Amino acid sequence: MFPKNAWYVACTPDEIDGKPLGRRICGEAIVFYRGPGGTVAALEDFCPHRGAPLSLGRVVEGQLVCGYHGLEMGCDGKTVAMPGQRVRGFPAIRSFPVVERHGFVWVWPGDAAQADPARIHHLEWAHHPDWAYGGGLYHIACDYRLMVDNLMDLTHETYVHANSIGQKEIDETPVNTRTEGDEVITSRFMNNIMAPPFWRMALRGNGLPDDQPVDRWQICRFSPPSHVMIEVGVALAGQGGYEADPKVKASSIVVDFITPETETSIWYFWGMARRFQPQDQALTASIREGQGKIFSEDLEMLERQQKNLLAWPDRPLLKLNIDAGGVQSRKVIDRLIAAERGTPAETPA
Amino acid sequence: MFPKNAWYVACTPDEIDGKPLGRRICGEAIVFYRGPGGTVAALEDFCPHRGAPLSLGRVVEGQLVCGYHGLEMGCDGKTVAMPGQRVRGFPAIRSFPVVERHGFVWVWPGDAAQADPARIHHLEWAHHPDWAYGGGLYHIACDYRLMVDNLMDLTHETYVHANSIGQKEIDETPVNTRTEGDEVITSRFMNNIMAPPFWRMALRGNGLPDDQPVDRWQICRFSPPSHVMIEVGVALAGQGGYEADPKVKASSIVVDFITPETETSIWYFWGMARRFQPQDQALTASIREGQGKIFSEDLEMLERQQKNLLAWPDRPLLKLNIDAGGVQSRKVIDRLIAAERGTPAETPA
Amino acid sequence: MFPKNAWYVACTPDEIDGKPLGRRICGEAIVFYRGPGGTVAALEDFCPHRGAPLSLGRVVEGQLVCGYHGLEMGCDGKTVAMPGQRVRGFPAIRSFPVVERHGFVWVWPGDAAQADPARIHHLEWAHHPDWAYGGGLYHIACDYRLMVDNLMDLTHETYVHANSIGQKEIDETPVNTRTEGDEVITSRFMNNIMAPPFWRMALRGNGLPDDQPVDRWQICRFSPPSHVMIEVGVALAGQGGYEADPKVKASSIVVDFITPETETSIWYFWGMARRFQPQDQALTASIREGQGKIFSEDLEMLERQQKNLLAWPDRPLLKLNIDAGGVQSRKVIDRLIAAERGTPAETPA
Repeated sequence: MFPKNAWYVACTPDEIDGKPLGRRICGEAIVFYRGPGGTVAALEDFCPHRGAPLSLGRVVEGQLVCGYHGLEMGCDGKTVAMPGQRVRGFPAIRSFPVVERHGFVWVWPGDAAQADPARIHHLEWAHHPDWAYGGGLYHIACDYRLMVDNLMDLTHETYVHANSIGQKEIDETPVNTRTEGDEVITSRFMNNIMAPPFWRMALRGNGLPDDQPVDRWQICRFSPPSHVMIEVGVALAGQGGYEADPKVKASSIVVDFITPETETSIWYFWGMARRFQPQDQALTASIREGQGKIFSEDLEMLERQQKNLLAWPDRPLLKLNIDAGGVQSRKVIDRLIAAERGTPAETPA
Repeated sequence: MFPKNAWYVACTPDEIDGKPLGRRICGEAIVFYRGPGGTVAALEDFCPHRGAPLSLGRVVEGQLVCGYHGLEMGCDGKTVAMPGQRVRGFPAIRSFPVVERHGFVWVWPGDAAQADPARIHHLEWAHHPDWAYGGGLYHIACDYRLMVDNLMDLTHETYVHANSIGQKEIDETPVNTRTEGDEVITSRFMNNIMAPPFWRMALRGNGLPDDQPVDRWQICRFSPPSHVMIEVGVALAGQGGYEADPKVKASSIVVDFITPETETSIWYFWGMARRFQPQDQALTASIREGQGKIFSEDLEMLERQQKNLLAWPDRPLLKLNIDAGGVQSRKVIDRLIAAERGTPAETPA
Repeated sequence: MFPKNAWYVACTPDEIDGKPLGRRICGEAIVFYRGPGGTVAALEDFCPHRGAPLSLGRVVEGQLVCGYHGLEMGCDGKTVAMPGQRVRGFPAIRSFPVVERHGFVWVWPGDAAQADPARIHHLEWAHHPDWAYGGGLYHIACDYRLMVDNLMDLTHETYVHANSIGQKEIDETPVNTRTEGDEVITSRFMNNIMAPPFWRMALRGNGLPDDQPVDRWQICRFSPPSHVMIEVGVALAGQGGYEADPKVKASSIVVDFITPETETSIWYFWGMARRFQPQDQALTASIREGQGKIFSEDLEMLERQQKNLLAWPDRPLLKLNIDAGGVQSRKVIDRLIAAERGTPAETPA
């Protein structure tokens, strides 16, 4: 169960460089490629001739050419040509609304008539020279909502990421959770603590001492359908914390686009946008490597949690205060799914 | 769905050299081995004692000895002996009609009473010193009919095998398809073209120049249940083409025995019989290697096509002129299945 | 189908050294670990907070700490603490009776009220300085009863283990099978034969000649739910055989604990307890290696037999005299299952 009338991140532009990409999104088998003029296109990954996946073909001057018998498909899902054939009567295949923006390719797997590019999640940092971004992609065999839970409750850092970003003070500091329309925000502020290893590395990267007390913050923001942006950072203690001057802090936005593949698997686009030393590409690479390693620590936990939930489908889970971010986010998701289907939401708001 | 009252290639003789072979054919788990006097035998792969696969046993003086507790099975499916036991009352297991001929082992997975060895596909080249043969075996996860389609429509060579046997002229030259009883023949003749790399290699192998125009032909012949023999070749242009003197051409027969394992997987016996330089074993090896590489290019396409068709079971496929060979072959197959079952054929002829 | 009100071997103590172990036993997903004071504990492998497997966590001063959000679980299945939470209302998870004894960890996957540690299988050799033990663990994809059959009919040694413990005389010597309450004993005595390779190695290990005739014995004893202890050995011929003086024989007990994981898979704890040269650790290692290799020869046979039985579910198997040990053992098992369920046994005794 996922909203289908929504913009999801499908891939990054480099994944369709010079060749088509087949990827299942919200249950739909889709081929992504660059059509005429380089504009991104998304079609059902099914050749109307004999059912071959179009993603095994290639792109010739903006046409997607089937790799089996050479059918040339247009980006509207109508066959353009095929050697020796009249194609006018060929059945069309479905095309999906798709937009390249902010350094990502976004797809709308639901009702195309409702797809408004203005509703694509805005990423201010993607267009600003003060910011730098690095990220990656993981495939994880879990319900996308388990990843939303994970990111909206960072107490898990203390246990899953004990050697990098976790620290006891996360557990000891209460969170505040609130909703703003369809967004859910959960935040935690920890003052006058020692930074954990990842943040000591970031402080050094910004030319700051790493052996002094800091103020640390985590502000997680869920946006439908399943994006979680997390403002994180540390500032030298007592200089304003989250509001401190950029010169005395290292801060960034953890970027999480969680795209359902099936009911129990996801494409997880993770990354970090930072507002310090944006021109330092070695720092970008080093942060990306560190983040990739940290985020990979969640994979086994999420996949094994998913297996447990499938084995015990009727067992209720607890909804503690630390879970409020995930619980509220699921309510928003339920509401959107119910609205799509014209039925009442499963979880009363 | 496959005809079961038919002779299928089960294995090559070297696969049962000195030991039994377990292989599923048309859904039947069968053990093949050499019985008394070296005659090939085929039985259900199930020991009547405790259900162990007999193919894990060994052959001792023509008896198949179960590898678990030593039951000795006769090639008629009746237990011959077992240490310390009277075996007269042991239940028999099924034996399958099986014949070694033309360099292959043929099995009849259906009603044994109807198995007439005279109906085994004749391979003239297998007995003639002017011919040489080399081939191999692939396991592919697709319906056997997708492979029949593949071989009865060679336009795919232009796309799947672009660097070896494919060339634009295949697409541009129309095919002729006809049926002769239960056989389907689809042919294409391309005159005065440049040979693609595989055929240039073959021309050189036959001591002919590889930089001159040639006439090229492809004559695909489907025979039930699922054999496809393809006469292919090139002759120096304007010297009679298919009918040209053997001295000015390089020609061969592509041999394809497609044996269903299950509804969605096959044992694909491929090879090439050639009528030039038959004594040149290095050439045989080189052609075999080249063909094996080319034919392996079809595997991913066929397996992914199969997955697509399973995901979209109700979606109709196109039946174009280039598909006529496969379409007509499927009609023959449908007719045979219907005759076996005593029901009307699904596809009207 | 397996008795659940029974003590099964779950693991060996080294498997829970310093970290929890997740293992499915009789269909139950269980986490094993050392609780307060080092006492072994067994719980459902499901954190009541969000369903994570507790076996991914760690043990801190005898408390099992969930690796996701730090819930601390007590060995009675009640949550002890969780950072920032009041845990009194948390739902308990199931705890399983578990005992460490005789060098193994034993679990009772059924009704805890009936779990009496006095009923744990007694292993006299585990506590006696005259004995040495070495063993291992295999995971095998077969019904546990197929392994019981295997061990209660050693004629298979002649075929499966032809190069180590098998010999023709096993086949030629009749077995005697009898039941004693819930135990089944099947025995075979072979006099004045040459020892096979494994036993020649054992004779040399005990300082005895390996080129003289011996008397050999095999006494298999099934005990519920699915333990098989086999007294095996050889003595220099004519000196009393099984009853001969320890100085002229090499004898041991083959130890087999067969613990169902699911209906079609097992944890197979195998080993050998010997009464000669107990202090010789190199001999222990060498016997263990030899036995491990021999017992691995059964794996393919059992897994393929299981597949055959699943493919032909309605096909009856033979019950010969050599199968009597397995057949009688299954009757005991059926009786226990029926008693648990309050229904008549499937197989009449």
